[in-house]
Amino acid sequence: MLTRLLLIFTLMIEISFINAQEMSKNELQLMPWPQEISLNSSDFSITTDFSIFIHGDVAEDSRIFKSSTRFLRYMTDKSGVFLKEGFPNAANVSAENAGVQIEFEEVAELKMGIDESYRLEVDASGIRLKAKTDIGAMHGLSTLLQLIDVKAGGYVFSGASIKDHPRFVWRGLMMDVARHFMPVDVVKRNIDAMAFVKLNVFHWHLSDDQGFRVETKSLPKLIEMASDGQYYTQAQIKDVVAYADERGIRVVPEFDVPGHGTAFLTAYPELASKQGIEYHLERNAGIFDPTLDPTNDKTYAYLDTLFKEVTPLFPDQYFHIGGDENEGKHWDENPDIQAFMKEQDLKDNHALQTYFNIKLEKILSKYDKVLMGWEEIMTENMPKSALIHSWRGVNEGLAPGQSLTAAVKNGYQTILSNGYYIDLLLSVEDHYMVDPMPAVDLTEEEAARILGGEATMWAELVTPLTVDSRIWPRTAAIAERFWSPQEVRDIDSMFERLETISQMLELIGMQHMRSQSYIFRNIANYQDDDALRILSEISEPYKIYSRNAGGTEYQTYSPFTLFADACTADAKAVRPFQKAVANYMATNDAASKKVILSYLRQWSTIHSRIEDIADKAPLTAPILPYAKKVSEVSILLTVAVDTNTLSKNNMKLFHSIMEVQEDPSLNLDVTLAVADALTSLATYLAK
Amino acid sequence: MLTRLLLIFTLMIEISFINAQEMSKNELQLMPWPQEISLNSSDFSITTDFSIFIHGDVAEDSRIFKSSTRFLRYMTDKSGVFLKEGFPNAANVSAENAGVQIEFEEVAELKMGIDESYRLEVDASGIRLKAKTDIGAMHGLSTLLQLIDVKAGGYVFSGASIKDHPRFVWRGLMMDVARHFMPVDVVKRNIDAMAFVKLNVFHWHLSDDQGFRVETKSLPKLIEMASDGQYYTQAQIKDVVAYADERGIRVVPEFDVPGHGTAFLTAYPELASKQGIEYHLERNAGIFDPTLDPTNDKTYAYLDTLFKEVTPLFPDQYFHIGGDENEGKHWDENPDIQAFMKEQDLKDNHALQTYFNIKLEKILSKYDKVLMGWEEIMTENMPKSALIHSWRGVNEGLAPGQSLTAAVKNGYQTILSNGYYIDLLLSVEDHYMVDPMPAVDLTEEEAARILGGEATMWAELVTPLTVDSRIWPRTAAIAERFWSPQEVRDIDSMFERLETISQMLELIGMQHMRSQSYIFRNIANYQDDDALRILSEISEPYKIYSRNAGGTEYQTYSPFTLFADACTADAKAVRPFQKAVANYMATNDAASKKVILSYLRQWSTIHSRIEDIADKAPLTAPILPYAKKVSEVSILLTVAVDTNTLSKNNMKLFHSIMEVQEDPSLNLDVTLAVADALTSLATYLAK
Repeated sequence: MLTRLLLIFTLMIEISFINAQEMSKNELQLMPWPQEISLNSSDFSITTDFSIFIHGDVAEDSRIFKSSTRFLRYMTDKSGVFLKEGFPNAANVSAENAGVQIEFEEVAELKMGIDESYRLEVDASGIRLKAKTDIGAMHGLSTLLQLIDVKAGGYVFSGASIKDHPRFVWRGLMMDVARHFMPVDVVKRNIDAMAFVKLNVFHWHLSDDQGFRVETKSLPKLIEMASDGQYYTQAQIKDVVAYADERGIRVVPEFDVPGHGTAFLTAYPELASKQGIEYHLERNAGIFDPTLDPTNDKTYAYLDTLFKEVTPLFPDQYFHIGGDENEGKHWDENPDIQAFMKEQDLKDNHALQTYFNIKLEKILSKYDKVLMGWEEIMTENMPKSALIHSWRGVNEGLAPGQSLTAAVKNGYQTILSNGYYIDLLLSVEDHYMVDPMPAVDLTEEEAARILGGEATMWAELVTPLTVDSRIWPRTAAIAERFWSPQEVRDIDSMFERLETISQMLELIGMQHMRSQSYIFRNIANYQDDDALRILSEISEPYKIYSRNAGGTEYQTYSPFTLFADACTADAKAVRPFQKAVANYMATNDAASKKVILSYLRQWSTIHSRIEDIADKAPLTAPILPYAKKVSEVSILLTVAVDTNTLSKNNMKLFHSIMEVQEDPSLNLDVTLAVADALTSLATYLAK
Repeated sequence: MLTRLLLIFTLMIEISFINAQEMSKNELQLMPWPQEISLNSSDFSITTDFSIFIHGDVAEDSRIFKSSTRFLRYMTDKSGVFLKEGFPNAANVSAENAGVQIEFEEVAELKMGIDESYRLEVDASGIRLKAKTDIGAMHGLSTLLQLIDVKAGGYVFSGASIKDHPRFVWRGLMMDVARHFMPVDVVKRNIDAMAFVKLNVFHWHLSDDQGFRVETKSLPKLIEMASDGQYYTQAQIKDVVAYADERGIRVVPEFDVPGHGTAFLTAYPELASKQGIEYHLERNAGIFDPTLDPTNDKTYAYLDTLFKEVTPLFPDQYFHIGGDENEGKHWDENPDIQAFMKEQDLKDNHALQTYFNIKLEKILSKYDKVLMGWEEIMTENMPKSALIHSWRGVNEGLAPGQSLTAAVKNGYQTILSNGYYIDLLLSVEDHYMVDPMPAVDLTEEEAARILGGEATMWAELVTPLTVDSRIWPRTAAIAERFWSPQEVRDIDSMFERLETISQMLELIGMQHMRSQSYIFRNIANYQDDDALRILSEISEPYKIYSRNAGGTEYQTYSPFTLFADACTADAKAVRPFQKAVANYMATNDAASKKVILSYLRQWSTIHSRIEDIADKAPLTAPILPYAKKVSEVSILLTVAVDTNTLSKNNMKLFHSIMEVQEDPSLNLDVTLAVADALTSLATYLAK
């Protein structure tokens, strides 16, 4: 095999090594970008003879057999090829005749820090994938899937030689299934997508003020009274954990205590820090007061009972206890708790929470679990074994990632989520440029304590219908940050590749595009919805929690089938339009002018087209005034671009239209993402 | 309450009773059509105050509470209303102030023949739903959801008074999950759709030559060797059965024996009628020889073991043992079996299969199950307790429903599937016009033995991606046949209502539209796919199994993301185009001419538009020659309609283009569904 490989390398006609800086110029649409890659011009065609041979002793229920089979299905669906052999290692397939050869040394036991590296060689003569572990080989298959391209009218795998391994060992996605419950199939398809971009930790936020989501036989009221009937059975949890394991993904559960405790206290009010009030599942978003009583022995007994029952469901070593955003109001109000603190010499609420956390840490060690928690758990006496999850930043009045540096300097291992809060609906660019490694001096030992990061999908404003479009494709760029070399940070390249990855994610089963088109159909009440789609390409949902002012505009049962729910954080037409405007202003060129006019003319008709369907589509009512503004300024600027001038009066008119604010009671909740570009253009033309 | 109702009736300004014949003229988009309905002009508006009050003692985990909650979510998603109270019987909701009042007498134990009737009264003052059972009330909620409409720019429930009950007690949908496995979420969403159109039996075809799909601990090889890892765990089956029960739907499992036995024999070849050959899961479609050996005692021991383990998973009284399409080839070939038949005085294979069935019937009675099977089980000595599933017809060289009449005359209860084979991809019209009650003289007693029918979704050519588009919306029309009065058979009305029901099914979660648009994106490789969509509106997939000639063109792992998979049985533009052509030929009117020209002009550009994307979309290659034909005849006829004449030469040209046959090796597998209309038009113009 080695000789054969060497021979092939010698014969290659055209090999180009690509470094990170050159990425944007190449045609490969890989994400995350590999550590080392060289291209060759020798592609491997996808034909009916395509087959996979896995070396060694391979059971049909092994990870590699199953992932290779999935690979074949994805490839078939994408390319439409009718394979002769639909399974790897089919009777007629051998090491001699198989197009794809897969070799690895060992089946990994899934845990943090296993070898995930792989080597992939693709040329016209064949595809060779080698890895230390089966997990590494599966990463290689994900890369191979991304190498599918069209050349000379046919589907091929692009010729390339790749040597790859992750930069960080902890590459996570958190899904909050408490604020809005996410059924098993939603979780599973997101795990598929994670595997596709080489993420390896699924952090499952399973309890919060709005619901407790795990069947717990020893504490049955948690689901009877605090789940609205929306929870995972233990069988489902085992199923999901096995599903993730088959894809090389660890599952870390989170049971958030002592704050975010409304669900817990709805079921067991006797554990509350404040007695004499009724607890009900929270329907709004926000930070709430209900908190477990850390001075009550029963609290620990109950948590021990809970942990004893749930820890066996989650084989991973880590167990997340939350610990965030406890403002301690009910502690302050409770004289018994105050007396206890005095008695125990606990100076403040931080000290009391440390007291609580240390007790939890002891319970969890009984069950062989390492405690992790949000950064608030990092207090003076917290054992150094705890993993600190850094999350606060500018929104919380702190320097971004401040706790990350503090943690490693204090001797804790840590992961970063500040900067990866995808529920903020910031541009993917903002997340992409955040690096888990802070720009401060760290010793080698300290730096090694930074294990990686996690994107966090908080679910106040997402439902099973929309969650995919909030996570993807954006999280692929974050996955690249966690996997690829630090110097891979060309934003144009990222945006370009993200477009293709978004398409591939649909092949993997993501619903982001399908759900969007459904929402348009629903708004239009099944009339022509094209104008809505065009409008969405320049509209972005309100960012940084401003959509849900005070956490009370939207309840858990509010509609999330509105225009804002179909819009995405990086509206599609914004960057091309901005670029055209910038070019036009710089060079006054005809090509840019043409692009600008083409956009403006399209936008000019939006309002009348939506008016045409409005009678039979009540959900267009809040959109109309906004569409009117968009069309009016577009008409104004079309004339201005055409005539190359904007009169003073028309500039005034432009501003007066742009200044019209949408009625917040309409809950339109989007901003015109080309507003700045339009203003620049108007200003330029009014010069 | 009653007085109040009477008062309201007295006050009603405009009441119109609608009989079946008048349906097409009314605006209500109900399916199935109710037994009795009268309209009033007093609609109930959907506002933020909308609320539901359920009378009696209602637990949060009861069917009615859960279905009412789902109702609120559907209504919210559809209308965008921000409800003050997101749950029925919320703290502020009472019998006095609730918009919807629900009353029923008892919680039904789900079984055949329970009371499913309901009464629904909607006017501006409120909505009153009354039923004998909670299941009846849930049917009323489905009807109410279908009453949602837009009036005067706002969402309302249309004013109506409805008295309703089903015509047949058995209204089923069969899903084959053996040929292509359907994951739990696919099954669940189809159960939701079933409930929406008042179907009440989910027939789950769980084993066949291509796979065995149920975790069986006592016969573990069934899933280890004969499932490709694609099966339901017992926990998942319990979950699905509970899910169906919550929606008033019985689950009848089918384990197909003794034929269709390849999966069984792949696991346990010792039970085969033919020894000395290796059994492997079948990858093709068709009727195969592997058959369980009815002369082997072990066969019954194994089936007893299987039934003992699986019967508790399925609480319904009925248990389907298949029994179809056993051609007995391996029986004929086996001298031991022949000897056994002689010894037992079994004249032929039918007699041997009866011997087998009667043994099974005894085993199943041990587990309190009533045996049902496909019509082949109806042989001389079959106990009259067995339920006969009538399926054969013209395709099998028999008169349609012949066995149905035979069954009731022989004293068997029966259900009909002949005429409801939705996998044939016939027009919904064909299924709709088939009535379970045959047009022959039956005594009252005989007629009463006809329990209803089932649509059958065989899965040789469907996958989780496409199955919804094969079942829906068509099966809603079949559901109407099973539920509504026999005289409800206006085809225009059915087609019109089906369009709205199709949209509502998307609200319920069906993926038929979403998957179609995904397939277009995939074929176009994410370029402009509008021409593909237009072409699909006049193209229908090959019917009556001609798509998969000999059952060998498509394997289970073949691509089902092709153009034919995006096309549907009743292509959208066909009926309107046919009508326009018929009108035009009858009256030569300008309006019809305009419609025809508008279609033809659209079709004229299809080919060039697909050519524009072809370089980067290899999956368009098989479509192009077909698109060329379509565009060429459309151009030809555009000129002809414009000029009101078609020359002899052009008529020749028309025929020569139309006669071009697509290359079958391209697997395009669609027919031009407007071909006849085009030919009529051409002939008319050439007059």
